[in-house]
Amino acid sequence: MEVTRQNFKDTLKTVCSAVEEADFLAIDGEFSGISDGPNVSALTNGLDTPEQRYAKLKKHSMDFLLFQFGLCTFKYDQEKSKYIIKPFNFYVFPKPFNRTSPDLKFICQSSSIDFLASQGFDFNKVFCNGIPYLNQDEEVQLREQSEERRNQQANGVGTPSFISPSSKGPAHVPEEHKDFINRVIGKVEALLTNSEKTLDLEPCTGFQRKLIYQTLNWKFSKGLHVETVETEKKERYIQVIKVDDEERKRREQQKREREQEELNDAVGFSRVIHAISKSGKLVVGHNMLLDVMHTIHQFYCPLPEDLQDFKEVTMCVFPRLLDTKLMASTQPFKEMITNTSLAELEKQVKEAPFKSPQVETAEGFHSYDTAQEQLHEAGYDAYITGLCFISMANYLGSFLTPPKAYISAHSKVVEPFFNKLFLMRIIDIPYLNLTGPDLQPKRDHVLFVTFPKEWKTSDLYQLFSAFGNIQVSWLDDTSAFVSLSQTDQVQIGEFRKPYRYMRSFCNSREL
Amino acid sequence: MEVTRQNFKDTLKTVCSAVEEADFLAIDGEFSGISDGPNVSALTNGLDTPEQRYAKLKKHSMDFLLFQFGLCTFKYDQEKSKYIIKPFNFYVFPKPFNRTSPDLKFICQSSSIDFLASQGFDFNKVFCNGIPYLNQDEEVQLREQSEERRNQQANGVGTPSFISPSSKGPAHVPEEHKDFINRVIGKVEALLTNSEKTLDLEPCTGFQRKLIYQTLNWKFSKGLHVETVETEKKERYIQVIKVDDEERKRREQQKREREQEELNDAVGFSRVIHAISKSGKLVVGHNMLLDVMHTIHQFYCPLPEDLQDFKEVTMCVFPRLLDTKLMASTQPFKEMITNTSLAELEKQVKEAPFKSPQVETAEGFHSYDTAQEQLHEAGYDAYITGLCFISMANYLGSFLTPPKAYISAHSKVVEPFFNKLFLMRIIDIPYLNLTGPDLQPKRDHVLFVTFPKEWKTSDLYQLFSAFGNIQVSWLDDTSAFVSLSQTDQVQIGEFRKPYRYMRSFCNSREL
Repeated sequence: MEVTRQNFKDTLKTVCSAVEEADFLAIDGEFSGISDGPNVSALTNGLDTPEQRYAKLKKHSMDFLLFQFGLCTFKYDQEKSKYIIKPFNFYVFPKPFNRTSPDLKFICQSSSIDFLASQGFDFNKVFCNGIPYLNQDEEVQLREQSEERRNQQANGVGTPSFISPSSKGPAHVPEEHKDFINRVIGKVEALLTNSEKTLDLEPCTGFQRKLIYQTLNWKFSKGLHVETVETEKKERYIQVIKVDDEERKRREQQKREREQEELNDAVGFSRVIHAISKSGKLVVGHNMLLDVMHTIHQFYCPLPEDLQDFKEVTMCVFPRLLDTKLMASTQPFKEMITNTSLAELEKQVKEAPFKSPQVETAEGFHSYDTAQEQLHEAGYDAYITGLCFISMANYLGSFLTPPKAYISAHSKVVEPFFNKLFLMRIIDIPYLNLTGPDLQPKRDHVLFVTFPKEWKTSDLYQLFSAFGNIQVSWLDDTSAFVSLSQTDQVQIGEFRKPYRYMRSFCNSREL
Repeated sequence: MEVTRQNFKDTLKTVCSAVEEADFLAIDGEFSGISDGPNVSALTNGLDTPEQRYAKLKKHSMDFLLFQFGLCTFKYDQEKSKYIIKPFNFYVFPKPFNRTSPDLKFICQSSSIDFLASQGFDFNKVFCNGIPYLNQDEEVQLREQSEERRNQQANGVGTPSFISPSSKGPAHVPEEHKDFINRVIGKVEALLTNSEKTLDLEPCTGFQRKLIYQTLNWKFSKGLHVETVETEKKERYIQVIKVDDEERKRREQQKREREQEELNDAVGFSRVIHAISKSGKLVVGHNMLLDVMHTIHQFYCPLPEDLQDFKEVTMCVFPRLLDTKLMASTQPFKEMITNTSLAELEKQVKEAPFKSPQVETAEGFHSYDTAQEQLHEAGYDAYITGLCFISMANYLGSFLTPPKAYISAHSKVVEPFFNKLFLMRIIDIPYLNLTGPDLQPKRDHVLFVTFPKEWKTSDLYQLFSAFGNIQVSWLDDTSAFVSLSQTDQVQIGEFRKPYRYMRSFCNSREL
């Protein structure tokens, strides 16, 4: 189901109940770019520590926008022995809530945009119809502002912007606005004596509206309800209404409800993430570290500096995660699956010894056909990620005694994969462990090597040919980490110039 | 006429001849954002020097993308006594030329994007169908690379990436690729003895293709033409063709022509700017400083640090500019035109004492109706900018003896407005003078004032009420420039705490 600003409000209930009833959820995000900094080989060096990798992704990837969020809910139907799925494809965009709310800037990377364009991505759905959102701080701030404004208006103090030395007395009206304000006072005085109920003042500037509020608060403390209204052309003007105390309260109540609804609308897509989070359901993703980081960054809070703090925040937002790329790269799948990209994985788990799960799209939802690939649409990618998880989980069930054909998301056999996120292109640390310390492999067989910038990987292979197999992790044009296959091979003094080298202290090294 | 990647090549001739035959051109740009830095009041402080303003715009506005470029050509038809116009609306996007070419990143500002969305802007035309472009450095670099590669291939040295110590001998083929390469050698040997003309190798990785080129260059130095070809699915494979010397030359010539055309395609939209530049025609814009800066930045060269250098580059690219916002803000128009925004100006110059010019849209072009405003489409904005220029220029003609109803773009009466760009919100320097030193107004009646952050403009008015009229230029929450109406009013020692103050040295102050 495609969800944009237009149908979001009507769809939210459907989303929440799909999440509530699901056995597990699959998610995927599409971004306006991947890396704003160094080239990919430096961004994802093969010998990064988890701390370094987190710091690099945080620094170089978070200024992009997650603008399409795919969610596919999977609910197992015992009777039919099949999964009922509900796929959603949300377009999100940080449309500013009002003139004073933050005006977010984000980066687009031409190659990413061009790639999505080649996949038929509809950018108008993002930029024209994207669902707005607020993170938790912004939501709290907005609710407090609204509360404060209400209290002050009730006390007749006016809005916060009026608190300045000069507002203790009557409004200071600059010379050029005096005529204008005097005309307003005349009109309001006439309203109080004539038979009209309502007075619509002419559209005017924000500054003039301030002056009007200040003046009316000062001069007429009772019997009036003053409110800013917008014309169809988005021009703002002030409406003054004669009211008794009861009507005044009723109108204030209405205004409060309207404001409350506007605030909920502004929180927007974040409410979907809140619902996922509150459900505590297993959330499955493929190579999902960036998806998780972006989701927290946009819809919860700025990412913490420290990796340990990030792990804690993540466990609050997503108490149970599973990464299908990690699963596919781990025993017993590692030997069977040669290419763990999502598209290839999805093809492989259709073949023996895997079995394609039986799935049925719930009524009213768009049904995907995996034969007609719609890769890189977030909803579709979430859907096939869920399929991969089911096939691999069920395969694990075949080792049980007695074998089980259906493995649930709560089963012990998938537990070893919980809360471990795949770390791309790190040689010796396969995953980020969200619920404990990370692996700390020995790295004393790793050399830091510098060389002329014309050198290629093959030159390094030649140089180290005496040492058998090596792994090269490029740092930049003139340096790399070279991992020898055995520790005892590293003997200082063995190499001669011009090949400078040093023992590496990867774990403490700042890249 | 809408111009995208799809019809650009077919349209370029039409564009060039429209520019060549025109009496003057009008331009306008739409951007992905305006300011990446401080708020607008700090970005455009009323007492900026031209150097400061240029530095701020360069720093805070150039990371946005100019993604729609409007051009409207105006040619006066003496017989019909009317202008024939040709409006173009170009969508541009920095689609990377190939895998090694720069992958541009640009910033989007939510409020700007949301504003354009509300005006019906079609983002897919930018991101999916935008015309690519290269600046001059990128173009030169690409042409040099292509030249170099050709020379090396002709000399049998292979592509530049092969120059490494190991390429002096036979290719170093890593163990895991040896089988693959041996199979290729076998196939090529078979080709040389059998009756086939062409051998299509299977698609393979870039690294494997390198190995193949290296190996074939080394083993078979004559009689073969080797080329990388792309399948419909964008998979790359190597084609080996048996050739004699003559055919080899012919194929190389074809390849060169193909490369040349690809290069021209990559230069893309910049060719339109080159044509405008080369024509030397008067280019009219409304409040055009940012348009000019973006145009030079994207399609010519990174903006120079120094304002004087910027002026020189600008005069090379656009030898004759005219800003209608400056014109409308200057005598004799200043007194007649209260609001110089483009939309309002366009309405005002339709009324007496102005006359709407007679215009006719050239055949085959979309004709705009100014009654149905299409503001913020760059082509439309360029069109009405041109109309405003004509009306104002013709009004100046009414003062000549004898009065002239038609004033050409070359007339003496518009010359005073040439090469002066409007400076937004600077109190005492109306324009940037591209062909000489800028105005240096006295600023010794200006105070730098600091105050508690609760203060509003009205508090400053009160504080300085004894000094008559003042002008306030906010710097941030707690400081501003205050301009008194007369110099001799500034007397140090007159103010007491808590209002700290100091004489300002605006011209030397770094903001």
